[in-house]
Parts: sequence; structure tokens; C-alpha cells
Amino acid sequence: MRFFSDNAAPVHPAVLDAMATADELDTAYDGDRWSRRLDERFAELFGTEVRVLWVPSGTAANCLALAALCPPHGAIVCHKDAHIQNDECGAPEFFTHGAKLLLAEGEGAKLTPETIGAVLSAARYDVHQQRPRAISITNATEYGRVYTADEVAAIGALAKERGLGFHMDGARFANAVVATGAAPAALTWQAGVDALSFGFVKNGGMNAEALVFFDTALADDTLYRRKKAGHLLSKGRYLAAQLLAMLERDIWLDCARASNAGAALLAAAAGPRLIHPAEANEVFLRVSPDEAAALRAKGFDFYDWGPGEARLVVSWNQRADAIRPLADAIAAL
Amino acid sequence: MRFFSDNAAPVHPAVLDAMATADELDTAYDGDRWSRRLDERFAELFGTEVRVLWVPSGTAANCLALAALCPPHGAIVCHKDAHIQNDECGAPEFFTHGAKLLLAEGEGAKLTPETIGAVLSAARYDVHQQRPRAISITNATEYGRVYTADEVAAIGALAKERGLGFHMDGARFANAVVATGAAPAALTWQAGVDALSFGFVKNGGMNAEALVFFDTALADDTLYRRKKAGHLLSKGRYLAAQLLAMLERDIWLDCARASNAGAALLAAAAGPRLIHPAEANEVFLRVSPDEAAALRAKGFDFYDWGPGEARLVVSWNQRADAIRPLADAIAAL
Amino acid sequence: MRFFSDNAAPVHPAVLDAMATADELDTAYDGDRWSRRLDERFAELFGTEVRVLWVPSGTAANCLALAALCPPHGAIVCHKDAHIQNDECGAPEFFTHGAKLLLAEGEGAKLTPETIGAVLSAARYDVHQQRPRAISITNATEYGRVYTADEVAAIGALAKERGLGFHMDGARFANAVVATGAAPAALTWQAGVDALSFGFVKNGGMNAEALVFFDTALADDTLYRRKKAGHLLSKGRYLAAQLLAMLERDIWLDCARASNAGAALLAAAAGPRLIHPAEANEVFLRVSPDEAAALRAKGFDFYDWGPGEARLVVSWNQRADAIRPLADAIAAL
Amino acid sequence: MRFFSDNAAPVHPAVLDAMATADELDTAYDGDRWSRRLDERFAELFGTEVRVLWVPSGTAANCLALAALCPPHGAIVCHKDAHIQNDECGAPEFFTHGAKLLLAEGEGAKLTPETIGAVLSAARYDVHQQRPRAISITNATEYGRVYTADEVAAIGALAKERGLGFHMDGARFANAVVATGAAPAALTWQAGVDALSFGFVKNGGMNAEALVFFDTALADDTLYRRKKAGHLLSKGRYLAAQLLAMLERDIWLDCARASNAGAALLAAAAGPRLIHPAEANEVFLRVSPDEAAALRAKGFDFYDWGPGEARLVVSWNQRADAIRPLADAIAAL
Repeated sequence: MRFFSDNAAPVHPAVLDAMATADELDTAYDGDRWSRRLDERFAELFGTEVRVLWVPSGTAANCLALAALCPPHGAIVCHKDAHIQNDECGAPEFFTHGAKLLLAEGEGAKLTPETIGAVLSAARYDVHQQRPRAISITNATEYGRVYTADEVAAIGALAKERGLGFHMDGARFANAVVATGAAPAALTWQAGVDALSFGFVKNGGMNAEALVFFDTALADDTLYRRKKAGHLLSKGRYLAAQLLAMLERDIWLDCARASNAGAALLAAAAGPRLIHPAEANEVFLRVSPDEAAALRAKGFDFYDWGPGEARLVVSWNQRADAIRPLADAIAAL
Repeated sequence: MRFFSDNAAPVHPAVLDAMATADELDTAYDGDRWSRRLDERFAELFGTEVRVLWVPSGTAANCLALAALCPPHGAIVCHKDAHIQNDECGAPEFFTHGAKLLLAEGEGAKLTPETIGAVLSAARYDVHQQRPRAISITNATEYGRVYTADEVAAIGALAKERGLGFHMDGARFANAVVATGAAPAALTWQAGVDALSFGFVKNGGMNAEALVFFDTALADDTLYRRKKAGHLLSKGRYLAAQLLAMLERDIWLDCARASNAGAALLAAAAGPRLIHPAEANEVFLRVSPDEAAALRAKGFDFYDWGPGEARLVVSWNQRADAIRPLADAIAAL
Repeated sequence: MRFFSDNAAPVHPAVLDAMATADELDTAYDGDRWSRRLDERFAELFGTEVRVLWVPSGTAANCLALAALCPPHGAIVCHKDAHIQNDECGAPEFFTHGAKLLLAEGEGAKLTPETIGAVLSAARYDVHQQRPRAISITNATEYGRVYTADEVAAIGALAKERGLGFHMDGARFANAVVATGAAPAALTWQAGVDALSFGFVKNGGMNAEALVFFDTALADDTLYRRKKAGHLLSKGRYLAAQLLAMLERDIWLDCARASNAGAALLAAAAGPRLIHPAEANEVFLRVSPDEAAALRAKGFDFYDWGPGEARLVVSWNQRADAIRPLADAIAAL
Repeated sequence: MRFFSDNAAPVHPAVLDAMATADELDTAYDGDRWSRRLDERFAELFGTEVRVLWVPSGTAANCLALAALCPPHGAIVCHKDAHIQNDECGAPEFFTHGAKLLLAEGEGAKLTPETIGAVLSAARYDVHQQRPRAISITNATEYGRVYTADEVAAIGALAKERGLGFHMDGARFANAVVATGAAPAALTWQAGVDALSFGFVKNGGMNAEALVFFDTALADDTLYRRKKAGHLLSKGRYLAAQLLAMLERDIWLDCARASNAGAALLAAAAGPRLIHPAEANEVFLRVSPDEAAALRAKGFDFYDWGPGEARLVVSWNQRADAIRPLADAIAAL
């Protein structure tokens, strides 16, 4: 059983079905009837007007959002372990044309107004430094932690007070919604978020993510940026159909419930081995090299995450009966 | 019947089938077994060693190729009607970080050593101008013309003589192969092409194009550039599977044969109305506004292409019986 | 005698004196008392509020202005022979992060509302093309022609109507002012110009040009861009002092009067050999290779400017007695 | 007396004289006889072949060097307090088109093979992160410390072993040479440095810095990058003349000797208040707000440098008799 990454999982059958259904001639790019439904459909979900662009990767969603919020001579505050800092090969710098990421601290890759404020206070506000223009947080975080609506709102208040844009990398937004029980609106625009990278691929999608602008004025230029970056795919209906399918009958929530539950099962078995509370679908464990080898010998695959640490990620399609053997193996270490 | 664009057509059933077949857990990004087969499979096709990267759009393929061939302070010679100049919203400038496109003339969007040479001769070779570093041609061209292997080779010889990289935008490469009857090798690396954007999406694919490096050393840095541009999709196997499926049993050739044949039917009906020889799957017609309206009244949709001109594009799935009514309508004008 | 370029000329004594006078300790960068006088001093000259930044090169002035007026996904209309197109090695693309130059036609490198309008009409206003966002003209032009205040205003009216920014490359602005007899205000902000690259170096300065924003809101971000591009020199007072010195006692006008007069002398001698009316300080002649050789044999140096053509540029310090021998030699051809 | 910054100081008389001497007509840009002497003159100084470009700012020198050493998808290891990180408004990201700075620790802004190695070890060498391609150190450092030749060589050996380029920001290179007593060669190319930003402006120059390539192949592309960035000034001889003047009769060393000596005087007075050993021309002191106010009341100006800390910088023209009153005032605190 593989617990490497939710990126490696297969695609939800409803997504494949929707793509097959979309397999008829329509207008190219994003003029088709699926793409044209996105704004309305996501507006329903969030209970407010939004502008939504599909893109084929989370990196594209994140970096288009950052480029909309921060000029080349600006800076973006994020966690030092953020995906945009560590896992996108400088895509933020590419899309923003050179904005700087200012790195904040925080347990479990979570930021707080205090840790963000420390970075903002350390900045000099003269032309010799890139001026902070945006904050980016990840929910659920890279370490499987979640921000509650209140926690997001506290950061949103800081962003508003300082005149900063506010981006949420929601590669695992569904997991955060499930974990917190909060409404999508409460976790985002009601908490001051201007742009959300709403992830579907890690949660059962294939190659469509939604870039959701709550500050709808940001969408206009982003349409050009998306094209300029090669992300305006010519048969966009196959992306739009994926997003619509995931939202139907709350599939996106079901998938996240399953993966969160799987992680909870593993976490319960791990007990004191847990490095971070397993609030979403990721579990970080302390395991010795020998223990890791023992787990692998039983057929469980996962990433080492620094010395003596392992990362286990549960995917949408790994249900309890598939998880339990690993939970038992961990408990038996 | 719509003849707007081959971008609007549905996806070949074999492609959808292959994607469904790839729907199982494997390694993320491009470490899966489909992606890992690409180099070998395309090497078979081209009869030489190649490095192949999937990307989700032709713009990404083109611009990653250009960035591999031309530094920010260089220039790229292309036709003034080239897709990279007119239809990619500055993506070449974005990916290359500011290289300049130098525009050459030529009937039907075709370049020749002479028209390219004229541009090269007009350049000053001092630091006040961006030095030409690459040539990019489109085969089949934006006006449905094709380059023969000899024509490509003549340009390739010029490129070699002047120390320039040579890129082919093959968004409709299949149509060119079918139209010329030339071997893929003869149209590309044997003619001096360093990098080919091998298009599948206009020809029955969904959202996977192949960037083929014949100069294999160019691939290494491009892997980073692809990631940095957000084009390293996390579930890459669904892209790789599309490419492999199209190459199986020569589906890519069958599709192009069909669309070329459809265009030939329309061209025959058009007779003296033809603006360019219809060598691939596009037909450009002289039609008055009244005539265009008459065709539309009969249910045929297409783009106006300047005053008194229309562009008709035949897709892979439009077979003769679907084309004939339009041919008849054109003949009857 | 060298007539290569006004770039090659020495520096006006008043400029050197002013630099020596500025040679005392003051605040670094642009906080010194010379730099802080610029806004007010240029406001006097132009009769309106302005924001002025010194920069060490005309390329920096031009490209910072363009970056202020045009986003990376925008386009700038300029003449096909404009300095920003042909002589800055892609600096506009670098500073704007990839904006495209759209090239218009026009005799003597002069644009008109008609030729600009032709380019604007040819643009498609969809996301597949970079949207025109600015117009840039050069006054005096690269061929020694000048725009009158009315001609500038006609273009300014078009810019306003289309919502485009309006930049003037005034590397030889002084020559245009002298040639037209127009007030600096009439040639610029009263005619709709938002940003002026006000050249001093070709006119007796050393290494300071003034970037003048009539749309003063554009200056704020430009302060960051200037720093980011390495153009915020640490001892800025030596640049500011140059600009102030040139404006004192109308030295800038005296210098331009001298060079314009010299060019007029040469033009009178050239008669039918003139390719363009010599309105500023540049003279373009038809001369055979033998004739060019004959002039050079007499000690006159200049650039060939295409086959059978020569460019002669008169500098601020070449007074009539120095020019006459060349005029005589031309007349004697 | 002002001890804000060596950037604020006046210019050495020999520099002004040389600029006046260069005030005659010559070829524009860098074709003049002063610019053409630079390679040879610096080769004498360094005892090896070099390619030298003048640029008008240290930021330009640094960032052109970094762009020569690191591609857009690469990374550069530097100290977290480096000028390129904190004081150039993202110019490194601009010139390199998005390379990332990886921040290393070290007392007094000094790096060691160990602290650099820690950063290199923390990097993942996959396409998801920008690969380290260069190291940049500052000598003398931002805190007035110097690297000995052996210390530089140890880092140079690491760079070579890892295949990394090696840049030295020598904004205060002269101070480092004087402080260490090392030969310029020993501190640079013999220690593995590929490119040096050789600073003159803080040391008595006006607006010319030397970018010295020991890896001479890097200069070719840099000529284009310099132009593209607007740093190829048209009257380059006034920059070249500055550099040549400073090298004549060892003026550059005399100036640095004076400012180092002044700092030593202050440091001796400061005793236990010293935060860093004052090896070059900068002194960092612990002073309470009241003490700082007391010093200022006596007419001494300087920067606060964090709470309870002050930075005093001695300029080339501040001789012992000017320094002593401040030294006395510090001693009397």
C-alpha cells in the first residue's frame, strides 16, 4: 500500500464520467458551457460573488494568485515550510516577476498574526527592500494542520489593517473544511481571503484546480496572465467538467472525509510517535530507520521526512479497511 | 456543423480509454510508468534518441522550447503570422524572459531561407540589439500550408550555418506528416530541427502535448523550467497515457488523414475562392459577407478571417459525409 | 571632425562645475538637497506639478516609463525604427517583464494618429494577444524630425480616447523644443504626455537623464523599480546637479540651438541629397560609397546608414566654424 | 560630523580631475580609450587575465555577476544579512529572472564552508526546488568583518567541489585588502572567485564600479545584459576614467587605509561596546537611546541599527583629526 502522496492516487469515477460526458464539440478555451458555469456554481458554494478560473496545476493556481496580489517589487509573507517556498522551483518568483517570499515561523507550518507581524516589523519600508504586499497561508498546512475560521480571520484582519492581499493555498482545502466543520465561506472570504487556490487534484481530481477570486477585480488581468503562462488549455471543458463533478453531490467533501478519517486512524495508532496533530489527511511520525524498514517490509510505502521521521498521506480512495493494516503495523512497532 | 477550430473537437475514444486505464495509483509527477515510456516510444517513432516532456498546452511546449534555445537577450526569427507572435499573449517573452521575436515575411505563413536571411541580415550584431539565436517555423502553418522535408532542411542548413537553434511548432505536425508523406524523422531532426512541439490536442487529444528534444541536452534545464512554469502536473500519467494512445496503431496519422481529407473536399469545392492551397486541415476562402451569412444560415459555423475571408478548420472526427454538405454549399455560392 | 554621435561629445563646462560644487557630503541616494530640488525645478519649467527621477541612461528612463505605463501582458505602440525597438537590446521587454512592442509605420520615424490607429485596429482584443496599453513616440525622432505641439496633441487625444498611456522618448527633447519653438508644456503634458524621458546626455550632460512624470501617481512604484534595476545610484547628488545645471540660464536650450543650427548648415549644403528634413541636429544624406570615402579622406567621420546613406549628428559643442568645412565638402561633392 | 554612510562622502579629487581630463570627444559607450584600457589595467592589478565592465552602481555589478553565474531556475547561497538580500529591493531576482537566494547564517555576516554546506545539504536536488548554482560572499562584510585569503579559499574550494559559481560583493573590497594585507589576487581568483564586484564609490569614487570577471567567458553575455538593463552608459569614458584614476598611485588603497584607520580609532574608544570586531571601516556599537541622543547632541550623526545599536561608517576623507572628537565622545559615554 502506498502512502506517498495524495497526488499519486487515481481519479474519482464521477470525475472520469464527467469528462466523458464533456466529450463533445464546444467552443475552445474557456468559452464552453462547462467553463461558463463555474462562476455561478462556486458562487453558490461560497455564498458570494466569485470569479473562477480553472488551471491544470496547483502551482499555477498559487502563482497566478500571487501575481495578482503582488507586484514584482513587492514581497509575500509565507511560512518557511510553505509549498510556494519549497516545492515550486521558484514559480512564485517566475509568475510575479521577482517578488520575494518573506519567511515566517510557526509550528506545523501554521502562521499567526504574531509570527506574520514579526516579519512585517522586520521589514524596512524604504525602496531598498521589497515592500510586503501579500500574505499566503496554506490550509490544510504542509504538515497536516488546519486553520480554523477564527484563525484565518485573525490573519485576514491583519492583512486588511496593513493593506496586504491575502491568499490561501487550498491544495487540501477540502480537508480543512472537513476538519474544521466550518463553512467554505467562513474559512475564506468572510475571513478576509482575496484569492483561494481550491485544490481538487489531491482529492480525487485529475488535472483541474480552481483559482477562486473573492476580490473579483483581480480576475481580469489574471485571464491574460493565465494565457501568457500557457495555462489556458484549448479544450478547457475537460477541466471545468472535473470541477463541476467534484462539487456535485458533495463528492469533494466525501473524498476529504475519507482521507481525513484514514489519517485519524493512523494517528490514533501512532500515539506518542505523532510529530504534529493529524488534523487533515497527513500523518507525520517519529520512526527509527529500523522501524521504517519494518513497515516497508510489510508493504507500506511512504516518504522519509528528515532523519527519524516519516510522512504518510492518505488518499481519497483509501478506506478504513485498507488503512487498518498499516495502523496495526504502526501500533505494533 | 462547426468548423471553428480543431481545438473545439471532442477527444478520440482511444485517448479516453487510455486515460481510464491509467487510472490507478502510481508515482506522482512524471515518475510513473507511462511517463517513463515516452522517451523510448518517441525514439521508435523518430528513429533517433530523443527526450520527451509532456505539457498540457501547445503554448507551453512552444515556449519551453524557445526558452531552451534562446537567452533573454537573444532573438527568435519567426513568421509575422506565427502563433507564437499572434496568439500566445506574449508567452514566448514570458518563458524566455524577454527575448524578441523578429518577424519574417512569406506567403501562407511559410518561411524560406531567403526571408529568414533577410531578417538576419537586417540585424546589427552589436550589444544594442538582441542577437538572433533561434528560428521557429510552424508545420503545418497557421494558413494550412506545409513544409516539405527539403524545405525544412534548407532552413535547418541555414540555422546550422548561422549557429541558430531550430524549433518547429508542430501543433498540426500530424497534418504535415500526412500531407507531405514524409517520415517524421525527415521532417524534423534529419532536417536540423532541435526541438519539436508535437501537437496532439488539435488532432484528437485532450490536454497533452509532447515537447520533443532532438538536441537531448536541452531537456535537463527544461525539466526545471516546466516545473517553474506550473506545467509539471502532479498526475502526469494521464497526460503520458494520451500521447502513448495516440501513437498506438497510428491513430495520430488516421486522425490527420481524416481532417486533411475533409479540407481537401472543401478546397475542391471552393476552387478559385481558395486563398491558400489547402494542404493540411485548414481552408481559407474568399467569401462576401452575404455569402458568409448564407453559409451560416445553413448551419455552418466558422471564423471570419479579415474582411471578405473565412477560415474553415476540419477536425479529426469530421468525416466525409459530414463535410459534403458544406462542400456543396460552398460550391453553390 | 567627428559627426558620429552626440553621445560622443564632451560635457558642458557648467555641468562639470556643478558636479564639483556638489562634491560635498550629503545624504546618500536621492535624499540630498540637489535631488530634492528636482520636482520643484522641473515644475517651474513645465508649469505643472511633476515628479522627477534622475537615472544614468536614456534606456533606463525610457524603460522605467514604459514599465510604469504597461503591464507584462500589455503592448506598447511605437515606430518600427524607434530607439526602444532597435537600440536597447530588449530593455523594454526586460523592464516591463515581457510587454510587446507593436510596430507602426511613418516617414522619418514619425507616428500619426492614423498609423497608430492602424496598429490598434489590427490588434485583437482577446486574451490571446497582449492588449495595447501605451504609445511611445520619440521627439525629436531617430531621423531628426520633430513633432509639433499639435501633432503630439493629436496622438495624445488618441491615447486618451483609447485609454492608453503616453510616453515621449525625449533623448533629444531640447532639440525638439528649439526646432518647434513650442513651450515644453505644450509639447508634453498639455498634449497628453504622461511620462517624458528628458534627455540631457546627448545635449551636453554627462550621465544623468530626467524621467519626468506628469501623471505623478506613476512615480511611486517607479522609485522601487529604479532601485530594483540598479539605477538608484548611491551618490545621486552628482546626477541631480547635472540636471539642475543644464536648466540654469537655459543652457539646455543654448546647446540644442547650437546643434540644430549646425545641422541646418549641413542640410542647406546637402540640398537634394537630404533624405529627411533636418529639423533637429541629425542629417541623413544620400552619398555614394565613393563620396563617403571622399568626405572621410578629408577628416570627417560619420556612420553609414544603410547602402548609399550617411548619418551626420551635430553635437552641442560643434559651432558654425567647425561645421562649415564639412558643409563645404558636402556642397562640393 | 556624519557617519551615516561612506555612500554620502564626497569624491576624491583625483577622480574629479580624471573625469575632467576625459572630457573630450571619443567613441560612445565603451569604445573609448579609457574603457578599452580597463582589462589590461585590472589584469596588472590582479596578475591574471580579466574582463572588466564598468557599471554605475554596486547593485548593477552584483546582479550582473549573479545573472552570469545562475540561471532563473537556480539558487544562490548568501548570508541572511547580505546586501543582495536586504538592500537591493530584489535586484538579484530581477537580473537573474527569478533565482532564489538561500540564506546562510554566520556571525558578522560572514559565511564559512560549514554554514554554506548546511544550506546546500538542506536543499533537495530535484526539480521541485531551485538548484544551488552559486555562492555570494561580501568582503568586507555588511558588519565590517573581513575574510582572509584562506577563508575565501576555503569557500572557493567548496564552490569548486560542488560545481558552484563564486561571486564576491566587494563594495568594500579595498577595505578588505587593506585589513588583511592580502594581495588582491589572493583574495579573489587564487581563492576561486569567478566574479568580483569591485567597489569604488564608497571609497572615493563617484558613480563607477568595476565588475571583474576572472572567469572571462562570463563577460560576453554580460555585455548584452548590461545593455539590456540600461547600464551601458553612452559616455562611458567618464566611468572608466574614475576607475583608472583610483588605481593610479594606489589611491584606492590610501582611501581604504584612511577609513579603516578611522574605524579602528572608534573601535578602540568603544571597547566592550563593540558588537563586531571593527576590521574594516564600519563600527557597530551598543548604545542606549540616551547615549545615542547624547552623541547626536554633540553633532555626530549615524544610523540606529536595531534597538540599542548604532552603526558608524568612516569615509575615505575622514581623517584622524576629524574622527578623534567622536572617539572621545564614545569613550566618555
